Amino acid sequence: MLKRCCVQVSLCCLIAQSTGRGYNVTQRTIGMKQHLCRQSLEIELFSRMKKSVLLHQIANIVGKENLLEQLEDRCSYGYDASRLKGIPDFVVFPADVHQVAQLVKLANREHLAVYPRGAGSGMVGAAVPGSGGMVICINRLNRILEIDPDNMLAVVQPGVVTGQLQKELLDYGLFYPPDPASLQFSTIGGNVAMCAGGPRAVKYGVTRDYVLGLEAVLPTGRIIRTGTRTVKGVVGYDLTRLLVGSEGTLGIFTRIVLRVVPAPETTRTLLAVFPRLEDAARTVSEIIKQRIIPSTLELMDQASIRAVENHLHMGLPTEAEALLLIEADGREVLVREDMVRINQICRESGASETETAHTESDRERLWQARRALSPALGRIRPGKINEDVTVPRTEIPALIRATRRIAEKYELIIVCFGHAGDGNIHTNIMLDKKNRDELQRAEKAVEELFRTVLALGGTLSGEHGIGIAKSPFFRWEIEDAAFDTMWTIKRALDPLNIMNPGKMFVSDRAFFR
Amino acid sequence: MLKRCCVQVSLCCLIAQSTGRGYNVTQRTIGMKQHLCRQSLEIELFSRMKKSVLLHQIANIVGKENLLEQLEDRCSYGYDASRLKGIPDFVVFPADVHQVAQLVKLANREHLAVYPRGAGSGMVGAAVPGSGGMVICINRLNRILEIDPDNMLAVVQPGVVTGQLQKELLDYGLFYPPDPASLQFSTIGGNVAMCAGGPRAVKYGVTRDYVLGLEAVLPTGRIIRTGTRTVKGVVGYDLTRLLVGSEGTLGIFTRIVLRVVPAPETTRTLLAVFPRLEDAARTVSEIIKQRIIPSTLELMDQASIRAVENHLHMGLPTEAEALLLIEADGREVLVREDMVRINQICRESGASETETAHTESDRERLWQARRALSPALGRIRPGKINEDVTVPRTEIPALIRATRRIAEKYELIIVCFGHAGDGNIHTNIMLDKKNRDELQRAEKAVEELFRTVLALGGTLSGEHGIGIAKSPFFRWEIEDAAFDTMWTIKRALDPLNIMNPGKMFVSDRAFFR
Repeated sequence: MLKRCCVQVSLCCLIAQSTGRGYNVTQRTIGMKQHLCRQSLEIELFSRMKKSVLLHQIANIVGKENLLEQLEDRCSYGYDASRLKGIPDFVVFPADVHQVAQLVKLANREHLAVYPRGAGSGMVGAAVPGSGGMVICINRLNRILEIDPDNMLAVVQPGVVTGQLQKELLDYGLFYPPDPASLQFSTIGGNVAMCAGGPRAVKYGVTRDYVLGLEAVLPTGRIIRTGTRTVKGVVGYDLTRLLVGSEGTLGIFTRIVLRVVPAPETTRTLLAVFPRLEDAARTVSEIIKQRIIPSTLELMDQASIRAVENHLHMGLPTEAEALLLIEADGREVLVREDMVRINQICRESGASETETAHTESDRERLWQARRALSPALGRIRPGKINEDVTVPRTEIPALIRATRRIAEKYELIIVCFGHAGDGNIHTNIMLDKKNRDELQRAEKAVEELFRTVLALGGTLSGEHGIGIAKSPFFRWEIEDAAFDTMWTIKRALDPLNIMNPGKMFVSDRAFFR
Repeated sequence: MLKRCCVQVSLCCLIAQSTGRGYNVTQRTIGMKQHLCRQSLEIELFSRMKKSVLLHQIANIVGKENLLEQLEDRCSYGYDASRLKGIPDFVVFPADVHQVAQLVKLANREHLAVYPRGAGSGMVGAAVPGSGGMVICINRLNRILEIDPDNMLAVVQPGVVTGQLQKELLDYGLFYPPDPASLQFSTIGGNVAMCAGGPRAVKYGVTRDYVLGLEAVLPTGRIIRTGTRTVKGVVGYDLTRLLVGSEGTLGIFTRIVLRVVPAPETTRTLLAVFPRLEDAARTVSEIIKQRIIPSTLELMDQASIRAVENHLHMGLPTEAEALLLIEADGREVLVREDMVRINQICRESGASETETAHTESDRERLWQARRALSPALGRIRPGKINEDVTVPRTEIPALIRATRRIAEKYELIIVCFGHAGDGNIHTNIMLDKKNRDELQRAEKAVEELFRTVLALGGTLSGEHGIGIAKSPFFRWEIEDAAFDTMWTIKRALDPLNIMNPGKMFVSDRAFFR
């Protein structure tokens, strides 16, 4: 009787979190909340008893020492870099794929939501649990299982920190290119779940381009192996790439086969100052049109330059509308030639000044402004909304002009910088989240920004994903047929919707606040 | 009444073709065939009447002139390069996405199987219709809609011939790298459906790496748009890559957004002769370990060399165990340096002879042996079974040694050549298909070859796909959980299984002969 009642309540929660169709879930959710309030007292009693039974079952799988149940511990695993938060019922640290499978099977039996978690460094709340449920941390699955220089691949567990893998690969002369800003602490598992990008994507592509195969625990608790150990492989549907970027909603990775490439022989850096933003944007296209693919093509707009200058007083040209920070990597002979040509293109396209790094300390100095951006922004306002919108490269000037108009209209400071080479511009709306009026204006600005991006043929997210934070806007980009197809797949593979529910498909951000 | 009966029969056919679980479908299929025979006379009458109603409905959608109904015409669209064949009831040539959608909706209403078809150049029967059903040819959807050099993308209809697109892109200094052997006649739509590869994959990757977005008609007749016009994009599940390589079982493409890259400045070619096969294979790994990624790294084994020499008498070294044909492309300065280093590596790794092409006619001469392979093989035996197995690069010697053993054991001639750079070795079992004994031995040899490939950590198909030809072996590679996941997705998106039924999931090749 106890079990049945709890199951019923859990089901209600799950339905409230998940019945998809983001566009009309709000009313249903409110109704559900009222319903939950009325029942709250009786539920409380049942859920305590239920919880202790579950605790025992989970401890049997992972061992007591790998299970957190104290509130303060559970809170620590309830948020990510989006600052959204929830409080899970349990936080568990399985040791291997079999424990993960047992946990997910238990969750199915008990209709318990499961929230996979890497380092919790995601930007959109994809690792944030709803109220209740079980956070499965993959941190103990943190071994590099194999580095195979001859076949240029690495086999890793999902808890390996991306930067650590890159470091170890370098000892073999190998290179794993994806470089999200979080790479010194984010995990490969999280990177694969979100299909992480980074500055180097302009030359090297994103995480999906490096995942050859996966072992994962499906929402039903079954263990699946997808893909190959070879670059070519066309046997059956491409489940590997369906799982990459699925934000933990289709399974928990337990082993990842990665393609790696030879480490570049050398890297050179150039900084170019542009009095006019349009010229900087045109330079980006021009470089690529001239058959040069830099490894990094970062842009800082005037607001970024001024923010850094106010912070560091390093003599940046605050009257310039843009800076480009350009790197080329690869074989010495080519990179040398590339840098000469890049310099020339910058000059011809309207750069007032260029500087090339000749030593590592030169390079560090050139990167200083870009690296100082985050702390510099913190001095403008205590908070920010960082949107990683992406437009076709040629639309960058239109995007930045539009953000200026939006900033003026809503009396906000908006700072644009990021990966101009692939059109992925991080648009930071600076604000104090405690200032309700500013927050409201910022939210309106985000909506207008997203409309602009879609009108320019772009996408709402180049590398952060949807998670909770962008779920209200998911349907702005994803049309009915595509949405229904995604939801059909989700429902078919996770009929109880226990795997990371409330992400992507659900539009009610408030549910998680 | 008439309609219900026909629908029932069609359903039976569909079930027989498709109830998944390739491993135990044969018996069910035989039972179904007997059942069908018993009913054949009454069905004949119904189906003729039914057919004329359908003809009228289809003509209303595409126009009479875009519909083939004569037996000889229908036969022409009933086979592909696998030489498997079927006879469809109708062959239609829609003009746009809306006509495709109407046809698929009609097929749903009438429970009619739909077989998407490009140029019919596939190697595994993925475009071969079962008995009955409607072949939808995408040949009229053959326009290049857009070439955008600034954003490095092309938007094309699926019926565009791949080689034609490549030619037109060159005028803009752009390059679409995938180069299946069929590129002069195969269509982009077919290439995307099968995720075509080619020799250049070692450097440039395969078709999936160039598809940014798709418009497709789903099995339900709904029109879906997936992906982005940008390289980065992580909004929702990666439906684009789920559709790429799905062999026409999940939808019919009607528009394809392709990423393109700058055309390489130059290409250089080198031919190296190896007395020992192991040395040639080691050279392949060594080149890549030294941070050189050639654009082509083709291997010919001794049987290939001898076949060509017997055919052309061009003075090839018939005592050599292997030839490597290596190309590097890109910027002049780099390619020049690469070729010097590649030459040196070949020499150091045991090549007895190397020759570099300095002119275009030199290059043609070096390619002559490789190009002559197909006609040369035709002189050994009238037929062949060409398996495009792929193993991790380091396992190539083991694979070729194993094929030699298999050839001896079954008294067959097996010729190995292909894309050594990515481990994709085309293994050609030469035979006269009319010789039943030889055919049986060849089929046993294929089974042993596949077991070897899987034991070496490889995959049964690097670029041809599964279709009908390899469907009996699909489950050898795809484990239960992955198979069930694929089949769950297929069932969820195509509940009536009308979209290219009988491919991939069904193991009964005989059904199509």
